[in-house]
Amino acid sequence: MTISLKNSRDAELLARAQRVVPNGVWGHMATRSIAPGYPQFFAKSDGCRVWDADGNEYIDFMCAWGPNVLGYGHAEVDGAAFARMKQGDIGNGPTEVMVELAELLVDTIDHADWALFQKNGTDATTASVTIARAATGRRKILVARGAYHGAVPWCSPSMVGVTAEDRAHLAQFEFNDIASLDAAVAAAGDDLAAILLTAFRHDVNRDQEMPDPAFLQQARRHCDQSGAALILDDVRAGFRLDVRGSWAQYGVKPDLAAYSKAIANGWPLAAIAGNERMREGAAKIFVTGSFWYGAAAMAAAVKTIEILRDTNALAHSAAMGQRLREGLDMVARRHGFTLSQTGPAQMPMVRFAGDQELRIGNAFCVAALRHGIYLHPRHNMFLSAAHQPADIDRAIAAAETTFKDIAALGITPPRI
Amino acid sequence: MTISLKNSRDAELLARAQRVVPNGVWGHMATRSIAPGYPQFFAKSDGCRVWDADGNEYIDFMCAWGPNVLGYGHAEVDGAAFARMKQGDIGNGPTEVMVELAELLVDTIDHADWALFQKNGTDATTASVTIARAATGRRKILVARGAYHGAVPWCSPSMVGVTAEDRAHLAQFEFNDIASLDAAVAAAGDDLAAILLTAFRHDVNRDQEMPDPAFLQQARRHCDQSGAALILDDVRAGFRLDVRGSWAQYGVKPDLAAYSKAIANGWPLAAIAGNERMREGAAKIFVTGSFWYGAAAMAAAVKTIEILRDTNALAHSAAMGQRLREGLDMVARRHGFTLSQTGPAQMPMVRFAGDQELRIGNAFCVAALRHGIYLHPRHNMFLSAAHQPADIDRAIAAAETTFKDIAALGITPPRI
Repeated sequence: MTISLKNSRDAELLARAQRVVPNGVWGHMATRSIAPGYPQFFAKSDGCRVWDADGNEYIDFMCAWGPNVLGYGHAEVDGAAFARMKQGDIGNGPTEVMVELAELLVDTIDHADWALFQKNGTDATTASVTIARAATGRRKILVARGAYHGAVPWCSPSMVGVTAEDRAHLAQFEFNDIASLDAAVAAAGDDLAAILLTAFRHDVNRDQEMPDPAFLQQARRHCDQSGAALILDDVRAGFRLDVRGSWAQYGVKPDLAAYSKAIANGWPLAAIAGNERMREGAAKIFVTGSFWYGAAAMAAAVKTIEILRDTNALAHSAAMGQRLREGLDMVARRHGFTLSQTGPAQMPMVRFAGDQELRIGNAFCVAALRHGIYLHPRHNMFLSAAHQPADIDRAIAAAETTFKDIAALGITPPRI
Repeated sequence: MTISLKNSRDAELLARAQRVVPNGVWGHMATRSIAPGYPQFFAKSDGCRVWDADGNEYIDFMCAWGPNVLGYGHAEVDGAAFARMKQGDIGNGPTEVMVELAELLVDTIDHADWALFQKNGTDATTASVTIARAATGRRKILVARGAYHGAVPWCSPSMVGVTAEDRAHLAQFEFNDIASLDAAVAAAGDDLAAILLTAFRHDVNRDQEMPDPAFLQQARRHCDQSGAALILDDVRAGFRLDVRGSWAQYGVKPDLAAYSKAIANGWPLAAIAGNERMREGAAKIFVTGSFWYGAAAMAAAVKTIEILRDTNALAHSAAMGQRLREGLDMVARRHGFTLSQTGPAQMPMVRFAGDQELRIGNAFCVAALRHGIYLHPRHNMFLSAAHQPADIDRAIAAAETTFKDIAALGITPPRI
């Protein structure tokens, strides 16, 4: 390899962090969660680029794990938030911006008759479940096996520090498997409160899977028949596939949908959009948070959603994702590798066929860092409206060099 | 009454909101939660003042329900956040600011050996409970009856949409009642994971109560003997009473403490500070949130805590609270009323003795709005470093006029 990644500052920050933060870094960027060779500390982000703590610059395909949809530091979005902040971000109650944002969501999202705001995606999924239980007077929540809905005890992917009772009324089915869903619904009987589904299957470490329209229709039918709520967890995909909601193309409307990540292009905000059936349930529950009336993030959301609605930002990011997909596919084939590229082009999962234990994926992504490309070997990635054809082409050229690097490391195409 | 409160804009916003938000407003400012006559929508905040949507100006004693500790729109705090934001708020991982903030908390908070960051106070209390369970391998969490620890199913003050299993391992004791705590600890037996306490008793709708040092020492002793975690929920009082932690004056150290509200003077942030005993538990659990690496709020927190540590801001806000307490007491007596003013002076609860169903308190606080003073009849209030003697004196003069107003409404001192 010709380019060596500077990492002395990153190592120094991790050493300091390990003294004062358990593991040094929590969550997705914890040392145990990333391939060795990834930087853990960042200094700067702008447009479609990030810079790590050592000043290494990357064309970024993670978009802060989802929030960046229009480009980091977007002038119009940030300008709207700053203008609101000059009047004050928080006070003792909401501002007119809350009303404007709720009206905009109701106008924009297919199923929405009302909205509620929070800070984390997990706030929105948790409150959606609470609303479904309040609306139905029932308890059982059905979720797809392996789906991620947040990181609190009732839904965390980890059982460490979680009790069995936290999951007492959670039951599972297989995504896109109608018979499995039918069986779970039957088992829940007259205690079915909700079916909770992500927009598509975007579980970590496996190929992504778009929803089968017949499966979504069956879920809708079950909820219509039983009075349960169909909840769309659109935290990751919302405002990235379709501003009307991620199931708009299928014509299936949820009763509740949870949003966060891209809703305000990086400003901390989450939202629930619900229909009339769920309004009374939502009115009955008690939810609040210290910063939930905050107006700056709501102003950022209004501007973000207006731009997504009125421009070709999403179509552009999908086109950039498609360009990346085709380019990577071509380059990989040239080097004898087969890629499995799944999910929507603007939320790509890229995996190497026959890649046992991510040996190839990890080596490839770490090597790509040295050529200025930030990819992820086992989590879906994200394109933004700030990615331009020249960025994608540069990434594809970097991939070409990266394949030579991994060949030099002795990594050869697996027999499949 | 001589001054009539304009409220046409507030009414118009509420009518619009009622169409697109369940109840129009959620949480503390919901119509059902406030006395008729309170504005629900705000336009502006600055220093110790808020302006409602109709432009009515108030000297504010709610401080956005806690976050405002140095004054709304504090130039140094906001400047630090904006400077960080110019480099980017979020990227794919944390920045150096996370390390600096964790180091500052470890240096500042008595018991802290490490810190973790979130967005809501509820994130911090929920993760503290998860850490305690992970660290101990046990399940039971003991809480004081009536204490508020957040608004998610395991701890919400409402059972609407909540299942019995969400509370399966929660047990209660009476605050400051050693025998009651002993009994709860005995009942939990070898399954005791944690005792969770607020800094002092600041439950809604009742007199506040400072902790009995002997009670805190007994809680500490139980945790030392059993290996359980003593968790301080310092979300409301943290960085308002004592920058070292709200139990510093008692010499009792918790194992875990949850912070939010005032930690970044209004920027959305929460934190857990823990000791070595809890480090491994904290390292084992999985917690994350889409905006938890966000650097701007952390930069605001660093500046906020430095100012609180290096200036007399907290002593000043306590002095302003004391000035308000003495002034209100004098004015009330002059009009034949007896006030019960409890808790720390900078977090005052003001209640009228003998006030059945808050008839006097509600009338008084609503009438005070007309004289430019924003009070709360049944939730503790907050003073900030931005409150000046002239503001307090103006508030006391307004209280004098307010007593005349309520007398004109036929409200007379109750027989006690």
